[in-house]
Amino acid sequence: MQVFSMSDTKFNLGIQDVAVYIPSTRIDNLAQGSQYETDSDFVLEKIGVRELPRLGEDETVTMACKQAFARLLEKTALDPNEIECIVVCTQTPDMGGIPHTSALVHAAISAPEASACFDIGLGCSGYVYCLQVVTSFMQMHGMRKGLLFTCDPYSRILDANDKNTSLLFGDAATVTLISDAPKFVSKSVKFATRGSAAEALTKKSGNLYMNGRAVFNFALTDVPKQISELIDASGMSKEQIDLFLLHQGSKFMLENTIKRIDGIADRAPVDLELTGNTVSSSIPVLLEKHLGKDGLNTILMSGFGVGLSWASAIYTKPE
Amino acid sequence: MQVFSMSDTKFNLGIQDVAVYIPSTRIDNLAQGSQYETDSDFVLEKIGVRELPRLGEDETVTMACKQAFARLLEKTALDPNEIECIVVCTQTPDMGGIPHTSALVHAAISAPEASACFDIGLGCSGYVYCLQVVTSFMQMHGMRKGLLFTCDPYSRILDANDKNTSLLFGDAATVTLISDAPKFVSKSVKFATRGSAAEALTKKSGNLYMNGRAVFNFALTDVPKQISELIDASGMSKEQIDLFLLHQGSKFMLENTIKRIDGIADRAPVDLELTGNTVSSSIPVLLEKHLGKDGLNTILMSGFGVGLSWASAIYTKPE
Repeated sequence: MQVFSMSDTKFNLGIQDVAVYIPSTRIDNLAQGSQYETDSDFVLEKIGVRELPRLGEDETVTMACKQAFARLLEKTALDPNEIECIVVCTQTPDMGGIPHTSALVHAAISAPEASACFDIGLGCSGYVYCLQVVTSFMQMHGMRKGLLFTCDPYSRILDANDKNTSLLFGDAATVTLISDAPKFVSKSVKFATRGSAAEALTKKSGNLYMNGRAVFNFALTDVPKQISELIDASGMSKEQIDLFLLHQGSKFMLENTIKRIDGIADRAPVDLELTGNTVSSSIPVLLEKHLGKDGLNTILMSGFGVGLSWASAIYTKPE
Repeated sequence: MQVFSMSDTKFNLGIQDVAVYIPSTRIDNLAQGSQYETDSDFVLEKIGVRELPRLGEDETVTMACKQAFARLLEKTALDPNEIECIVVCTQTPDMGGIPHTSALVHAAISAPEASACFDIGLGCSGYVYCLQVVTSFMQMHGMRKGLLFTCDPYSRILDANDKNTSLLFGDAATVTLISDAPKFVSKSVKFATRGSAAEALTKKSGNLYMNGRAVFNFALTDVPKQISELIDASGMSKEQIDLFLLHQGSKFMLENTIKRIDGIADRAPVDLELTGNTVSSSIPVLLEKHLGKDGLNTILMSGFGVGLSWASAIYTKPE
């Protein structure tokens, strides 16, 4: 890697490709629901999740990221020796975070020693934030190829007595290749944080605690507001956006959030039936399904959750 | 916060000021040494630490960061309403990392809702990396005022039976104001990672494990090499650098690392007697002491440790 200075040549970096790893081990969520005396209608229509993928008992975040990376190599011509940056977005790192999981991934995928690796701690807003953090970092340092991983296996921190979280969260890992040959580049973005309401989603005594009502109200109020402000400030109209990728929190929450933005429902997928809420992986899991589709020119992403933290961004084809 | 686009006006961002919080609770390291049957010569000359500051039992990372921020407000004219970005570098976050500690700090210092907050997981190389990450992120997004906190109270994860770590690590918190009115700006930087050697510093069963010999060899071999390469690539000479701020790992390791770079010893402080190894806080703790000194025009910083991860950067006065 070269030493940079602020005056060095810059590249126009963005999202080149996305690869996804969904563990093959699945929990039948209807069966799990009946253990909690929760009827199938609630499981399928309110939570919206039929199957929950789960990492194997000995399967680490690093191993899941390596699986996602193997899939990325199948679909791109990336030479691992070109990697200059590895970032892992997680709040459930391997080994309690020491070392950072990105160093373990660095070893697992045999990346070059001249790589900048760090972890970012963010939850459901993580993908939208991290895309911006990694792209900015790479851009300012003249890097051409970087990897953004997301993997947050909340299954490790679920309270088995809490049906609201146990029926909701699924495990997945994703990797996004950020490069100088992008399919999509960032056009505009908005970030927000409300630390004063952080108690809505916290880890207590090793387990996830969620105040579902507080999260629901936050999603329905603040997310549509930020999305509308972003569209207005970008000088675009809602109609110009081909795809709205919102964090897949739960079916009921998502459908009601989408309803708050007139006329976008047919462009805003609700697609968590076979994955559940995969935290920072939910948006890239969806993005991977849509990225290569014809006629897709403009994508709006919006992530929201733990923090409370939310961020929305518009991505377009490079000029 | 404004929506950005890649063509927006950029600012020349850098380090405006640094503030430090060292807890008033201290461990007498000579007394602690004698409990381990370690003589005072070893404690003072090899480890090089007379006193180890410790956070109070109920004092969180967030509370320590808030103390550092209070000191920052005493020495700058920062209006908290101007804050657009809060980053916390830690591998020992409050509440097991959910929410991210930066959200808790966001609430503790009453920062505006339109703030981008995230945590970065890195150890002893963290400050050098994070300065670059945060500055890049702010620069690309047109932000003018951001806060980079470091706080990694390893006291929380020390094995009381392990004298090598228990006699070494101290607690501290720092905050660096990154702004458009910088005293120092980044000129050049190098990053590296060797995940294959991560086992030298890990968390096992909740406690820190350190292979001191492996870390020592790493510091003495790779750090001087990176520093020399950075200086060469920057087009400067060693003589042009006024101050070398190396991570304060231990006195013996630091002195021997410095010896490997001819002629810099008088400009490379060894200053951990009253703090110990404060992980990602060690460099900003030193920087705060030197930042306002006359004749200081060029600073080289080098952080190295957990990962293994290392990074070195040259900062100069803005043009």
